[in-house]
Amino acid sequence: MTDSDVDLTDPASFEYWITENVRIADTDMGGHINNTALAAYVESGRVSRLRTAMQQRSGGERWVIAHLDMDFRAEGRPPGQVRIGTRLVRMGSKSVTLGAGIFMADRCLATAHSTMVFLNGAETAVIPEAVRQSLAASPEAKPEE
Amino acid sequence: MTDSDVDLTDPASFEYWITENVRIADTDMGGHINNTALAAYVESGRVSRLRTAMQQRSGGERWVIAHLDMDFRAEGRPPGQVRIGTRLVRMGSKSVTLGAGIFMADRCLATAHSTMVFLNGAETAVIPEAVRQSLAASPEAKPEE
Amino acid sequence: MTDSDVDLTDPASFEYWITENVRIADTDMGGHINNTALAAYVESGRVSRLRTAMQQRSGGERWVIAHLDMDFRAEGRPPGQVRIGTRLVRMGSKSVTLGAGIFMADRCLATAHSTMVFLNGAETAVIPEAVRQSLAASPEAKPEE
Amino acid sequence: MTDSDVDLTDPASFEYWITENVRIADTDMGGHINNTALAAYVESGRVSRLRTAMQQRSGGERWVIAHLDMDFRAEGRPPGQVRIGTRLVRMGSKSVTLGAGIFMADRCLATAHSTMVFLNGAETAVIPEAVRQSLAASPEAKPEE
Repeated sequence: MTDSDVDLTDPASFEYWITENVRIADTDMGGHINNTALAAYVESGRVSRLRTAMQQRSGGERWVIAHLDMDFRAEGRPPGQVRIGTRLVRMGSKSVTLGAGIFMADRCLATAHSTMVFLNGAETAVIPEAVRQSLAASPEAKPEE
Repeated sequence: MTDSDVDLTDPASFEYWITENVRIADTDMGGHINNTALAAYVESGRVSRLRTAMQQRSGGERWVIAHLDMDFRAEGRPPGQVRIGTRLVRMGSKSVTLGAGIFMADRCLATAHSTMVFLNGAETAVIPEAVRQSLAASPEAKPEE
Repeated sequence: MTDSDVDLTDPASFEYWITENVRIADTDMGGHINNTALAAYVESGRVSRLRTAMQQRSGGERWVIAHLDMDFRAEGRPPGQVRIGTRLVRMGSKSVTLGAGIFMADRCLATAHSTMVFLNGAETAVIPEAVRQSLAASPEAKPEE
Repeated sequence: MTDSDVDLTDPASFEYWITENVRIADTDMGGHINNTALAAYVESGRVSRLRTAMQQRSGGERWVIAHLDMDFRAEGRPPGQVRIGTRLVRMGSKSVTLGAGIFMADRCLATAHSTMVFLNGAETAVIPEAVRQSLAASPEAKPEE
């Protein structure tokens, strides 16, 4: 499955959302949210999205990030919150790519792709069918929010 | 005004609350939330609480942190959220001390005191009466949540 | 100028280096350096490299990041330090792309490309000739180390 | 052993030093180093100082932070580096308190006390004599710098 044409600047592209506060510690002397904090927001969304698909995982299974690319589109400033949309854009046999969009009010601050490799112990492994089905399905609303 | 006897481990001590996601980037190799992330949570609560008392501030006025002390009481781990309670514990003429408690579910992870000095430009300044009254009053529920 | 074939996993590709301590706060519960800390290391190298080419800049000139892509190649753990190599890989009229490699001992932990846009005030601007020449020249050894 | 009268704003109080780069991600929209980054610098010094005294530790032994207090004395800004001095100020049977001073050029940006509790597994434990002697001795120069 590949869906590389999805427009990550469009909130309608996402069904899975989390919200993060913009912390003072997320900003830098440029007066805006630092790029590493935007990467942390992407990670929060990614980890939350993958967790919902991993309820049934066995002991040594985990995801590691292999690639991240980000496009920075607008500056964001506190106070306020950002909403992070996350969606599957590619499903491989041993890895997945997730797309993300970070929005503050109606502005898209950044978009990102994260490629996550599936490991069992120290070795890459084929993503189990149950996890694949869970990832491909529309996620339920995030339980903790 | 001084209220140094308040029990910051008791959620009932607080009327003002914010919520923060525990991000993966907030954790460290000890497997728990890093102490600097707990300090960032305290800052988020403090800045939000002071902002509600500063609607009427003039241009050069700002707060700077002069002192922070924190007691670390329990380890926290993701996934989940923390709730940060913030309250006034001392009002001086040119500074205030805020107390904070960080809670995950019903456990108190940390408590803190932050002393903030009021500046006008580069100089310490007497806190204006309108700001004092606003700080002393019970804060309204945080608007952005 | 474009030099997209440079091998960023090879230390010999770089003439400009900085060193960063791996802080505990840089790690996460996975027991390794968090990807956002690796992005902070890339930023440290990038900012230092651009600064050496900006001694003569005028008031409103600054760089903003437009794109970041990172490949994560090996896990890193404290204690220790990382060395970050930074080099020019593309010079456009209004932007530059810098390549980076992060090394711990002789292992490459990550490589990255950062595209930085030149601004004068709020507008993109043509990179001044003096800055272009300074960027294209071999950088001197970093003064503060 | 207690040495609470030591002046942590005086570089002569310290024999053990590390150096940290001031990263852009360490700053905030106030234009200065964020207080959580200053806490990270204190942690870097503390962990490095304790590590030199723990060469001989056995498996389940570790330190956890129980208390941190910091006095913020001057604003710091990049570019540049900070030097962090760390020293023992109190040795208890199951905990130690370390003092720290953060200096940029000749200015003291902040001082701190960190109380670290010694654990064996999940339980507090008496600090072994070999560790006590190592902590009390003048530390050797930090090996990795």
